[in-house]
Amino acid sequence: MKLGLLGPEGTFSEMAAKKWSPGAQLIFMDDMECATRAVDDGSCDESIVPIENSVEGPVGVVMDALLEIRSPIVGEEVLPVRQCLMSRGSLKDIKIIISHPQGLGQCRHYIHEHFPKAEVRTTGSTSHAARLAQEFPEMAAIGCSESAQKYGLKVLREGIQDYAANYTRFIVLGRHKPSPTGHDKTSLAVYLDRDRPGALYDFLGEFARRSINMTRIESRPSKKLLGDYWFFIDVEGHEKDLELREAISALKDKCTTLKVLGSYPRADRA
Amino acid sequence: MKLGLLGPEGTFSEMAAKKWSPGAQLIFMDDMECATRAVDDGSCDESIVPIENSVEGPVGVVMDALLEIRSPIVGEEVLPVRQCLMSRGSLKDIKIIISHPQGLGQCRHYIHEHFPKAEVRTTGSTSHAARLAQEFPEMAAIGCSESAQKYGLKVLREGIQDYAANYTRFIVLGRHKPSPTGHDKTSLAVYLDRDRPGALYDFLGEFARRSINMTRIESRPSKKLLGDYWFFIDVEGHEKDLELREAISALKDKCTTLKVLGSYPRADRA
Repeated sequence: MKLGLLGPEGTFSEMAAKKWSPGAQLIFMDDMECATRAVDDGSCDESIVPIENSVEGPVGVVMDALLEIRSPIVGEEVLPVRQCLMSRGSLKDIKIIISHPQGLGQCRHYIHEHFPKAEVRTTGSTSHAARLAQEFPEMAAIGCSESAQKYGLKVLREGIQDYAANYTRFIVLGRHKPSPTGHDKTSLAVYLDRDRPGALYDFLGEFARRSINMTRIESRPSKKLLGDYWFFIDVEGHEKDLELREAISALKDKCTTLKVLGSYPRADRA
Repeated sequence: MKLGLLGPEGTFSEMAAKKWSPGAQLIFMDDMECATRAVDDGSCDESIVPIENSVEGPVGVVMDALLEIRSPIVGEEVLPVRQCLMSRGSLKDIKIIISHPQGLGQCRHYIHEHFPKAEVRTTGSTSHAARLAQEFPEMAAIGCSESAQKYGLKVLREGIQDYAANYTRFIVLGRHKPSPTGHDKTSLAVYLDRDRPGALYDFLGEFARRSINMTRIESRPSKKLLGDYWFFIDVEGHEKDLELREAISALKDKCTTLKVLGSYPRADRA
Protein backbone atom coordinates (compact mmCIF):
# COMPACT_ATOMS: atom_id res chain seq x y z
CA MET A 1 0.00 0.00 0.00
CA LYS A 2 1.44 3.33 -1.10
CA LEU A 3 0.85 6.10 1.43
CA GLY A 4 1.56 9.69 0.34
CA LEU A 5 2.73 12.35 2.82
CA LEU A 6 4.71 15.56 3.15
CA GLY A 7 8.45 14.97 2.78
CA PRO A 8 11.35 14.68 2.99
CA GLU A 9 11.85 11.98 5.67
CA GLY A 10 11.52 13.19 9.25
CA THR A 11 8.28 15.22 9.15
CA PHE A 12 5.58 15.04 11.80
CA SER A 13 3.51 13.64 8.90
CA GLU A 14 5.86 10.64 8.82
CA MET A 15 5.20 9.97 12.51
CA ALA A 16 1.45 10.19 11.85
CA ALA A 17 1.79 7.92 8.78
CA LYS A 18 3.61 5.21 10.77
CA LYS A 19 0.94 5.38 13.47
CA TRP A 20 -1.83 5.11 10.84
CA SER A 21 -0.36 2.28 8.78
CA PRO A 22 2.89 0.80 10.17
CA GLY A 23 3.66 -1.36 7.12
CA ALA A 24 2.84 1.07 4.33
CA GLN A 25 5.30 2.12 1.65
CA LEU A 26 5.78 5.85 2.29
CA ILE A 27 5.79 8.17 -0.74
CA PHE A 28 7.24 11.55 0.23
CA MET A 29 5.74 14.51 -1.64
CA ASP A 30 7.08 18.03 -2.22
CA ASP A 31 4.32 19.97 -0.48
CA MET A 32 1.02 19.62 1.35
CA GLU A 33 -1.05 20.37 -1.73
CA CYS A 34 0.58 17.51 -3.70
CA ALA A 35 0.09 15.18 -0.73
CA THR A 36 -3.62 16.12 -0.55
CA ARG A 37 -4.03 15.37 -4.27
CA ALA A 38 -1.93 12.15 -4.27
CA VAL A 39 -4.87 9.69 -4.32
CA ASP A 40 -6.79 11.69 -6.92
CA ASP A 41 -3.84 11.79 -9.27
CA GLY A 42 -3.24 8.04 -8.92
CA SER A 43 0.24 8.18 -7.40
CA CYS A 44 -0.84 6.71 -4.03
CA ASP A 45 -3.52 4.44 -2.54
CA GLU A 46 -3.85 6.68 0.50
CA SER A 47 -2.33 9.95 1.70
CA ILE A 48 -2.11 11.59 5.12
CA VAL A 49 -2.07 15.39 5.64
CA PRO A 50 -2.35 17.77 8.62
CA ILE A 51 -5.68 19.62 8.79
CA GLU A 52 -5.51 21.57 12.07
CA ASN A 53 -3.22 22.28 14.98
CA SER A 54 -4.42 23.08 18.48
CA VAL A 55 -2.37 26.32 18.62
CA GLU A 56 -1.94 27.61 15.08
CA GLY A 57 -5.33 26.51 13.78
CA PRO A 58 -6.35 25.26 10.35
CA VAL A 59 -4.01 24.35 7.50
CA GLY A 60 -5.51 26.53 4.76
CA VAL A 61 -3.73 24.96 1.81
CA VAL A 62 -5.10 21.50 2.66
CA MET A 63 -8.62 22.87 3.16
CA ASP A 64 -8.51 24.62 -0.23
CA ALA A 65 -7.35 21.39 -1.93
CA LEU A 66 -10.10 19.34 -0.24
CA LEU A 67 -12.69 21.37 -2.13
CA GLU A 68 -11.22 20.22 -5.43
CA ILE A 69 -10.41 16.52 -4.99
CA ARG A 70 -12.73 13.51 -5.36
CA SER A 71 -11.04 11.09 -2.89
CA PRO A 72 -12.91 10.73 0.39
CA ILE A 73 -11.49 11.19 3.88
CA VAL A 74 -11.19 7.66 5.26
CA GLY A 75 -9.66 8.27 8.67
CA GLU A 76 -7.90 10.62 11.10
CA GLU A 77 -4.93 10.56 13.47
CA VAL A 78 -4.12 12.93 16.33
CA LEU A 79 -0.44 13.44 17.14
CA PRO A 80 1.09 15.28 20.10
CA VAL A 81 3.62 17.78 18.74
CA ARG A 82 6.88 18.43 20.55
CA GLN A 83 8.96 20.99 18.68
CA CYS A 84 12.76 20.90 18.98
CA LEU A 85 15.42 23.45 18.12
CA MET A 86 18.25 21.69 16.31
CA SER A 87 21.45 22.72 14.60
CA ARG A 88 24.93 21.66 13.64
CA GLY A 89 26.22 24.65 15.61
CA SER A 90 25.57 25.69 19.19
CA LEU A 91 23.01 28.11 20.68
CA LYS A 92 25.29 31.15 20.52
CA ASP A 93 25.94 30.65 16.77
CA ILE A 94 22.31 30.85 15.70
CA LYS A 95 21.51 33.70 13.33
CA ILE A 96 18.80 32.07 11.21
CA ILE A 97 15.78 30.05 12.32
CA ILE A 98 14.08 27.93 9.72
CA SER A 99 10.94 25.77 9.67
CA HIS A 100 7.50 25.25 8.15
CA PRO A 101 5.17 28.22 8.89
CA GLN A 102 3.15 26.01 11.28
CA GLY A 103 6.32 25.15 13.25
CA LEU A 104 7.34 28.82 13.42
CA GLY A 105 3.83 29.84 14.47
CA GLN A 106 3.74 27.26 17.25
CA CYS A 107 7.04 28.63 18.66
CA ARG A 108 6.46 32.34 17.96
CA HIS A 109 6.87 33.54 21.55
CA TYR A 110 9.90 31.31 22.11
CA ILE A 111 11.67 32.73 19.05
CA HIS A 112 10.71 36.29 19.96
CA GLU A 113 12.03 35.90 23.49
CA HIS A 114 15.22 33.91 22.87
CA PHE A 115 16.25 34.99 19.36
CA PRO A 116 14.79 38.48 18.86
CA LYS A 117 17.39 39.30 16.22
CA ALA A 118 17.38 36.03 14.27
CA GLU A 119 16.24 36.01 10.68
CA VAL A 120 13.25 33.71 10.27
CA ARG A 121 12.83 31.66 7.09
CA THR A 122 10.17 29.25 5.96
CA THR A 123 10.41 25.92 4.20
CA GLY A 124 7.82 23.53 2.78
CA SER A 125 8.22 21.13 5.72
CA THR A 126 10.00 20.86 9.08
CA SER A 127 12.27 18.09 7.78
CA HIS A 128 13.22 20.15 4.76
CA ALA A 129 14.36 22.76 7.28
CA ALA A 130 16.44 20.15 9.13
CA ARG A 131 18.02 19.02 5.88
CA LEU A 132 18.96 22.60 5.01
CA ALA A 133 20.40 23.24 8.48
CA GLN A 134 22.92 20.44 7.86
CA GLU A 135 24.84 22.84 5.68
CA PHE A 136 25.03 25.94 7.89
CA PRO A 137 26.09 25.95 11.57
CA GLU A 138 24.52 29.41 12.04
CA MET A 139 21.12 27.98 11.08
CA ALA A 140 18.73 26.21 13.47
CA ALA A 141 15.71 24.21 12.33
CA ILE A 142 12.51 23.69 14.29
CA GLY A 143 10.94 20.26 13.96
CA CYS A 144 10.70 16.80 15.56
CA SER A 145 13.66 15.11 17.21
CA GLU A 146 13.49 12.27 14.64
CA SER A 147 14.58 14.68 11.92
CA ALA A 148 17.58 15.82 14.01
CA GLN A 149 18.73 12.20 14.10
CA LYS A 150 18.03 11.72 10.40
CA TYR A 151 20.04 14.78 9.34
CA GLY A 152 22.84 14.67 11.90
CA LEU A 153 21.85 17.74 13.92
CA LYS A 154 22.14 18.29 17.66
CA VAL A 155 18.90 18.85 19.57
CA LEU A 156 19.69 22.12 21.39
CA ARG A 157 16.30 22.56 23.08
CA GLU A 158 13.28 20.27 23.35
CA GLY A 159 9.61 21.16 23.75
CA ILE A 160 9.97 24.79 22.66
CA GLN A 161 6.32 25.14 21.50
CA ASP A 162 4.61 28.09 23.21
CA TYR A 163 1.74 26.00 24.61
CA ALA A 164 2.30 22.65 26.27
CA ALA A 165 -0.87 21.13 24.81
CA ASN A 166 0.14 21.09 21.17
CA TYR A 167 -1.65 18.55 19.00
CA THR A 168 -2.02 18.19 15.25
CA ARG A 169 -4.94 16.40 13.67
CA PHE A 170 -4.20 14.59 10.40
CA ILE A 171 -6.73 13.28 7.91
CA VAL A 172 -6.26 10.29 5.63
CA LEU A 173 -7.54 10.34 2.05
CA GLY A 174 -8.27 7.05 0.29
CA ARG A 175 -10.09 5.29 -2.50
CA HIS A 176 -12.95 3.55 -0.68
CA LYS A 177 -15.52 5.00 1.71
CA PRO A 178 -15.33 3.23 5.09
CA SER A 179 -18.46 1.49 6.46
CA PRO A 180 -20.10 2.73 9.66
CA THR A 181 -18.45 1.61 12.92
CA GLY A 182 -20.78 3.28 15.42
CA HIS A 183 -17.99 5.69 16.39
CA ASP A 184 -17.69 7.87 13.29
CA LYS A 185 -17.28 11.45 12.21
CA THR A 186 -18.48 13.11 9.00
CA SER A 187 -16.74 16.10 7.39
CA LEU A 188 -18.72 18.47 5.17
CA ALA A 189 -17.89 21.58 3.17
CA VAL A 190 -20.79 23.92 2.48
CA TYR A 191 -21.22 27.09 0.53
CA LEU A 192 -24.27 29.03 1.70
CA ASP A 193 -26.22 31.78 0.07
CA ARG A 194 -24.42 34.71 1.68
CA ASP A 195 -27.19 37.21 1.07
CA ARG A 196 -29.76 35.36 3.13
CA PRO A 197 -29.60 36.50 6.80
CA GLY A 198 -29.68 33.58 9.20
CA ALA A 199 -28.59 31.07 6.54
CA LEU A 200 -25.90 29.52 8.75
CA TYR A 201 -28.24 29.37 11.75
CA ASP A 202 -30.89 27.70 9.63
CA PHE A 203 -28.28 25.25 8.35
CA LEU A 204 -27.00 24.29 11.81
CA GLY A 205 -30.59 23.79 12.93
CA GLU A 206 -30.84 20.60 10.88
CA PHE A 207 -28.13 19.10 13.09
CA ALA A 208 -29.36 20.61 16.36
CA ARG A 209 -32.95 19.38 16.02
CA ARG A 210 -31.65 15.85 15.43
CA SER A 211 -29.19 16.13 18.35
CA ILE A 212 -26.27 15.61 15.99
CA ASN A 213 -23.18 16.98 17.71
CA MET A 214 -20.97 19.36 15.74
CA THR A 215 -17.30 19.03 16.70
CA ARG A 216 -15.82 21.70 14.44
CA ILE A 217 -16.80 24.64 12.27
CA GLU A 218 -14.20 26.56 10.33
CA SER A 219 -14.61 29.20 7.64
CA ARG A 220 -12.36 29.58 4.63
CA PRO A 221 -12.46 32.43 2.09
CA SER A 222 -14.26 31.57 -1.18
CA LYS A 223 -11.61 33.75 -2.91
CA LYS A 224 -14.40 35.50 -4.80
CA LEU A 225 -15.30 38.33 -2.43
CA LEU A 226 -14.24 39.62 0.96
CA GLY A 227 -16.73 38.28 3.49
CA ASP A 228 -17.67 35.28 1.32
CA TYR A 229 -16.83 31.91 2.85
CA TRP A 230 -16.95 28.15 2.61
CA PHE A 231 -17.74 26.46 5.92
CA PHE A 232 -16.01 23.24 6.93
CA ILE A 233 -18.16 21.37 9.41
CA ASP A 234 -17.43 18.12 11.29
CA VAL A 235 -20.30 16.29 12.96
CA GLU A 236 -20.49 13.03 14.89
CA GLY A 237 -21.98 10.09 12.98
CA HIS A 238 -21.73 8.39 9.59
CA GLU A 239 -23.46 9.62 6.44
CA LYS A 240 -25.25 6.25 6.28
CA ASP A 241 -26.71 6.71 9.79
CA LEU A 242 -30.41 7.46 9.46
CA GLU A 243 -30.40 10.79 11.32
CA LEU A 244 -27.38 12.19 9.54
CA ARG A 245 -28.62 10.94 6.17
CA GLU A 246 -31.87 12.83 6.72
CA ALA A 247 -30.04 15.95 7.85
CA ILE A 248 -27.75 15.97 4.79
CA SER A 249 -30.71 15.45 2.50
CA ALA A 250 -32.55 18.42 4.08
CA LEU A 251 -29.39 20.54 3.98
CA LYS A 252 -28.84 20.02 0.28
CA ASP A 253 -31.90 22.18 -0.35
CA LYS A 254 -30.58 24.91 1.92
CA CYS A 255 -27.22 25.71 0.40
CA THR A 256 -25.66 26.39 -2.96
CA THR A 257 -23.15 23.54 -2.64
CA LEU A 258 -22.73 20.76 -0.10
CA LYS A 259 -19.81 18.37 -0.41
CA VAL A 260 -19.48 15.33 1.86
CA LEU A 261 -15.71 15.12 2.34
CA GLY A 262 -15.99 11.76 4.08
CA SER A 263 -17.37 9.61 6.92
CA TYR A 264 -14.71 7.82 8.93
CA PRO A 265 -13.90 6.34 12.35
CA ARG A 266 -13.18 9.01 14.98
CA ALA A 267 -9.77 9.13 16.61
CA ASP A 268 -10.07 9.52 20.35
CA ARG A 269 -10.05 13.15 21.35
CA ALA A 270 -6.69 14.45 22.48
CA MET B 1 -2.97 62.04 16.61
CA LYS B 2 -0.52 59.12 16.83
CA LEU B 3 -1.57 56.15 14.69
CA GLY B 4 0.30 52.87 15.17
CA LEU B 5 0.78 50.39 12.32
CA LEU B 6 3.02 47.66 11.01
CA GLY B 7 6.29 49.01 9.68
CA PRO B 8 8.68 49.92 8.23
CA GLU B 9 7.38 52.51 5.73
CA GLY B 10 5.75 51.07 2.62
CA THR B 11 3.40 48.41 4.05
CA PHE B 12 -0.19 47.89 2.89
CA SER B 13 -1.00 48.97 6.46
CA GLU B 14 0.47 52.40 5.63
CA MET B 15 -1.89 52.73 2.65
CA ALA B 16 -4.82 51.77 4.90
CA ALA B 17 -3.63 54.21 7.60
CA LYS B 18 -3.50 57.12 5.16
CA LYS B 19 -6.99 56.27 3.93
CA TRP B 20 -8.27 56.08 7.50
CA SER B 21 -6.67 59.25 8.83
CA PRO B 22 -4.76 61.30 6.21
CA GLY B 23 -3.21 63.75 8.71
CA ALA B 24 -2.17 61.34 11.46
CA GLN B 25 1.38 60.96 12.73
CA LEU B 26 2.31 57.41 11.76
CA ILE B 27 4.14 55.29 14.34
CA PHE B 28 5.68 52.25 12.68
CA MET B 29 5.83 49.14 14.87
CA ASP B 30 7.97 45.98 14.63
CA ASP B 31 5.19 43.44 14.21
CA MET B 32 1.44 43.01 14.07
CA GLU B 33 1.17 41.98 17.69
CA CYS B 34 2.86 45.22 18.87
CA ALA B 35 0.61 47.24 16.55
CA THR B 36 -2.50 45.55 17.98
CA ARG B 37 -1.35 46.38 21.52
CA ALA B 38 -0.22 49.98 20.77
CA VAL B 39 -3.27 51.76 22.22
CA ASP B 40 -3.37 49.54 25.27
CA ASP B 41 0.27 50.17 26.08
CA GLY B 42 -0.13 53.95 25.68
CA SER B 43 2.25 54.45 22.77
CA CYS B 44 -0.50 55.49 20.29
CA ASP B 45 -3.96 57.08 20.25
CA GLU B 46 -5.13 54.67 17.59
CA SER B 47 -3.66 51.74 15.68
CA ILE B 48 -4.64 50.01 12.46
CA VAL B 49 -4.04 46.28 11.78
CA PRO B 50 -5.11 43.73 9.14
CA ILE B 51 -7.69 41.23 10.36
CA GLU B 52 -8.60 39.19 7.25
CA ASN B 53 -7.76 38.83 3.59
CA SER B 54 -10.19 37.62 0.95
CA VAL B 55 -7.79 34.89 -0.22
CA GLU B 56 -5.56 33.90 2.69
CA GLY B 57 -8.19 34.33 5.40
CA PRO B 58 -7.81 35.50 8.99
CA VAL B 59 -4.70 37.01 10.56
CA GLY B 60 -4.34 34.72 13.56
CA VAL B 61 -1.80 36.76 15.51
CA VAL B 62 -4.10 39.82 15.51
CA MET B 63 -7.09 37.72 16.56
CA ASP B 64 -5.13 36.20 19.44
CA ALA B 65 -4.03 39.68 20.63
CA LEU B 66 -7.62 41.04 20.43
CA LEU B 67 -8.62 38.59 23.17
CA GLU B 68 -6.10 40.19 25.53
CA ILE B 69 -6.37 43.96 24.95
CA ARG B 70 -8.84 46.45 26.45
CA SER B 71 -8.97 49.04 23.60
CA PRO B 72 -12.15 48.83 21.51
CA ILE B 73 -12.35 48.49 17.73
CA VAL B 74 -13.44 51.94 16.53
CA GLY B 75 -13.50 51.50 12.76
CA GLU B 76 -12.53 49.44 9.72
CA GLU B 77 -11.02 49.99 6.28
CA VAL B 78 -11.07 47.70 3.24
CA LEU B 79 -8.13 47.92 0.86
CA PRO B 80 -7.72 46.29 -2.56
CA VAL B 81 -4.38 44.47 -2.58
CA ARG B 82 -2.22 44.40 -5.68
CA GLN B 83 0.96 42.42 -5.05
CA CYS B 84 4.11 43.27 -7.00
CA LEU B 85 7.34 41.36 -7.54
CA MET B 86 10.25 43.75 -7.09
CA SER B 87 14.01 43.51 -7.02
CA ARG B 88 17.25 45.33 -7.66
CA GLY B 89 18.11 42.58 -10.15
CA SER B 90 16.20 41.22 -13.12
CA LEU B 91 13.80 38.25 -13.40
CA LYS B 92 16.49 35.78 -14.41
CA ASP B 93 18.61 36.61 -11.33
CA ILE B 94 15.97 35.70 -8.78
CA LYS B 95 16.91 32.87 -6.43
CA ILE B 96 15.16 34.00 -3.25
CA ILE B 97 11.62 35.31 -2.82
CA ILE B 98 10.83 37.14 0.38
CA SER B 99 7.66 38.61 1.91
CA HIS B 100 5.24 38.50 4.81
CA PRO B 101 3.50 35.07 5.05
CA GLN B 102 0.22 36.70 3.91
CA GLY B 103 1.94 38.09 0.78
CA LEU B 104 3.52 34.71 0.02
CA GLY B 105 0.19 32.93 0.57
CA GLN B 106 -1.65 35.30 -1.77
CA CYS B 107 0.88 34.56 -4.56
CA ARG B 108 1.45 30.86 -3.84
CA HIS B 109 0.47 29.57 -7.29
CA TYR B 110 2.39 32.36 -9.03
CA ILE B 111 5.59 31.49 -7.14
CA HIS B 112 5.09 27.75 -7.71
CA GLU B 113 4.60 28.24 -11.44
CA HIS B 114 7.24 30.87 -12.20
CA PHE B 115 9.92 30.21 -9.56
CA PRO B 116 9.60 26.53 -8.63
CA LYS B 117 13.21 26.40 -7.46
CA ALA B 118 13.36 29.70 -5.56
CA GLU B 119 13.98 29.67 -1.84
CA VAL B 120 11.06 31.31 -0.03
CA ARG B 121 11.69 33.39 3.11
CA THR B 122 9.35 35.25 5.42
CA THR B 123 9.67 38.64 7.04
CA GLY B 124 7.56 40.53 9.57
CA SER B 125 6.10 42.79 6.87
CA THR B 126 6.09 43.26 3.08
CA SER B 127 8.08 46.50 3.37
CA HIS B 128 10.68 44.83 5.57
CA ALA B 129 11.10 42.39 2.66
CA ALA B 130 11.54 45.29 0.21
CA ARG B 131 14.15 46.87 2.48
CA LEU B 132 16.10 43.61 2.67
CA ALA B 133 15.93 43.10 -1.11
CA GLN B 134 17.82 46.39 -1.54
CA GLU B 135 20.96 44.55 -0.55
CA PHE B 136 20.77 41.45 -2.76
CA PRO B 137 20.09 41.46 -6.52
CA GLU B 138 19.20 37.73 -6.42
CA MET B 139 16.38 38.47 -3.97
CA ALA B 140 12.87 39.59 -4.97
CA ALA B 141 10.34 41.00 -2.52
CA ILE B 142 6.56 40.73 -2.81
CA GLY B 143 4.62 43.80 -1.67
CA CYS B 144 2.99 47.03 -2.82
CA SER B 145 4.48 49.22 -5.54
CA GLU B 146 4.89 52.09 -3.04
CA SER B 147 7.55 50.08 -1.21
CA ALA B 148 9.48 49.49 -4.46
CA GLN B 149 9.68 53.26 -4.89
CA LYS B 150 10.63 53.75 -1.24
CA TYR B 151 13.49 51.24 -1.31
CA GLY B 152 14.77 51.80 -4.85
CA LEU B 153 13.63 48.50 -6.35
CA LYS B 154 12.34 47.83 -9.86
CA VAL B 155 8.79 46.52 -10.16
CA LEU B 156 9.34 43.38 -12.28
CA ARG B 157 5.73 42.17 -12.32
CA GLU B 158 2.50 43.79 -11.12
CA GLY B 159 -0.70 42.14 -9.91
CA ILE B 160 0.86 38.72 -9.24
CA GLN B 161 -1.72 37.69 -6.63
CA ASP B 162 -3.38 34.35 -7.51
CA TYR B 163 -6.92 35.73 -7.38
CA ALA B 164 -7.88 39.04 -8.97
CA ALA B 165 -10.30 39.95 -6.18
CA ASN B 166 -7.82 40.37 -3.36
CA TYR B 167 -8.93 42.61 -0.49
CA THR B 168 -7.66 43.06 3.03
CA ARG B 169 -9.90 44.27 5.83
CA PHE B 170 -8.17 46.37 8.51
CA ILE B 171 -9.55 47.24 11.93
CA VAL B 172 -8.74 50.37 13.89
CA LEU B 173 -8.27 50.24 17.67
CA GLY B 174 -8.82 53.40 19.71
CA ARG B 175 -9.52 54.90 23.11
CA HIS B 176 -13.19 55.88 22.83
CA LYS B 177 -16.17 53.81 21.75
CA PRO B 178 -17.90 55.41 18.72
CA SER B 179 -21.59 56.40 18.97
CA PRO B 180 -24.18 54.68 16.76
CA THR B 181 -24.42 55.95 13.18
CA GLY B 182 -27.23 53.72 11.89
CA HIS B 183 -24.71 51.86 9.67
CA ASP B 184 -22.63 49.96 12.21
CA LYS B 185 -21.03 46.62 12.84
CA THR B 186 -20.31 44.92 16.16
CA SER B 187 -17.47 42.44 16.70
CA LEU B 188 -17.71 39.83 19.44
CA ALA B 189 -15.45 37.07 20.73
CA VAL B 190 -17.18 34.19 22.50
CA TYR B 191 -16.04 31.11 24.29
CA LEU B 192 -18.80 28.53 24.49
CA ASP B 193 -19.24 25.51 26.68
CA ARG B 194 -17.76 22.92 24.32
CA ASP B 195 -19.38 19.97 25.99
CA ARG B 196 -22.94 21.15 25.34
CA PRO B 197 -24.17 19.88 21.93
CA GLY B 198 -25.91 22.59 19.94
CA ALA B 199 -24.28 25.41 21.96
CA LEU B 200 -23.25 27.36 18.86
CA TYR B 201 -26.64 26.87 17.23
CA ASP B 202 -28.37 28.05 20.38
CA PHE B 203 -26.05 31.05 20.50
CA LEU B 204 -26.66 32.09 16.88
CA GLY B 205 -30.40 31.78 17.49
CA GLU B 206 -30.36 34.95 19.59
CA PHE B 207 -29.29 36.86 16.48
CA ALA B 208 -31.51 34.97 14.03
CA ARG B 209 -34.73 35.43 15.97
CA ARG B 210 -34.09 39.19 16.11
CA SER B 211 -33.18 39.28 12.38
CA ILE B 212 -29.67 40.51 13.23
CA ASN B 213 -27.47 39.71 10.26
CA MET B 214 -24.16 37.94 10.94
CA THR B 215 -21.46 38.98 8.47
CA ARG B 216 -18.62 36.81 9.69
CA ILE B 217 -17.88 33.83 11.94
CA GLU B 218 -14.36 32.60 12.43
CA SER B 219 -12.99 30.07 14.87
CA ARG B 220 -9.61 30.30 16.56
CA PRO B 221 -7.98 27.63 18.75
CA SER B 222 -8.27 28.25 22.49
CA LYS B 223 -4.76 26.76 22.78
CA LYS B 224 -5.98 24.56 25.61
CA LEU B 225 -7.24 21.50 23.75
CA LEU B 226 -7.55 20.30 20.18
CA GLY B 227 -11.14 20.97 19.07
CA ASP B 228 -11.61 23.79 21.60
CA TYR B 229 -12.23 27.19 20.02
CA TRP B 230 -13.02 30.85 20.47
CA PHE B 231 -15.52 32.19 17.94
CA PHE B 232 -15.13 35.63 16.42
CA ILE B 233 -18.50 36.89 15.24
CA ASP B 234 -19.36 40.12 13.40
CA VAL B 235 -22.99 41.23 13.26
CA GLU B 236 -24.69 44.27 11.77
CA GLY B 237 -25.77 46.93 14.28
CA HIS B 238 -24.40 48.82 17.30
CA GLU B 239 -24.23 47.41 20.81
CA LYS B 240 -26.44 50.34 21.91
CA ASP B 241 -29.17 49.41 19.41
CA LEU B 242 -32.10 47.93 21.33
CA GLU B 243 -32.21 44.58 19.49
CA LEU B 244 -28.52 43.92 19.67
CA ARG B 245 -28.34 45.06 23.31
CA GLU B 246 -31.04 42.52 24.17
CA ALA B 247 -29.29 39.79 22.17
CA ILE B 248 -25.95 40.40 23.90
CA SER B 249 -27.62 40.40 27.29
CA ALA B 250 -29.30 37.06 26.54
CA LEU B 251 -26.05 35.65 25.12
CA LYS B 252 -24.03 36.44 28.21
CA ASP B 253 -25.99 33.73 30.03
CA LYS B 254 -25.29 31.22 27.29
CA CYS B 255 -21.51 31.21 27.11
CA THR B 256 -18.51 31.03 29.40
CA THR B 257 -17.05 34.33 28.14
CA LEU B 258 -18.40 37.01 25.82
CA LYS B 259 -16.20 39.97 24.93
CA VAL B 260 -17.56 42.89 22.90
CA LEU B 261 -14.53 43.87 20.82
CA GLY B 262 -16.24 47.01 19.52
CA SER B 263 -19.16 48.68 17.70
CA TYR B 264 -18.10 50.87 14.80
CA PRO B 265 -19.22 52.29 11.44
CA ARG B 266 -19.19 49.71 8.65
CA ALA B 267 -16.91 50.21 5.67
CA ASP B 268 -18.75 49.57 2.43
CA ARG B 269 -18.42 45.98 1.35
CA ALA B 270 -15.72 45.36 -1.23
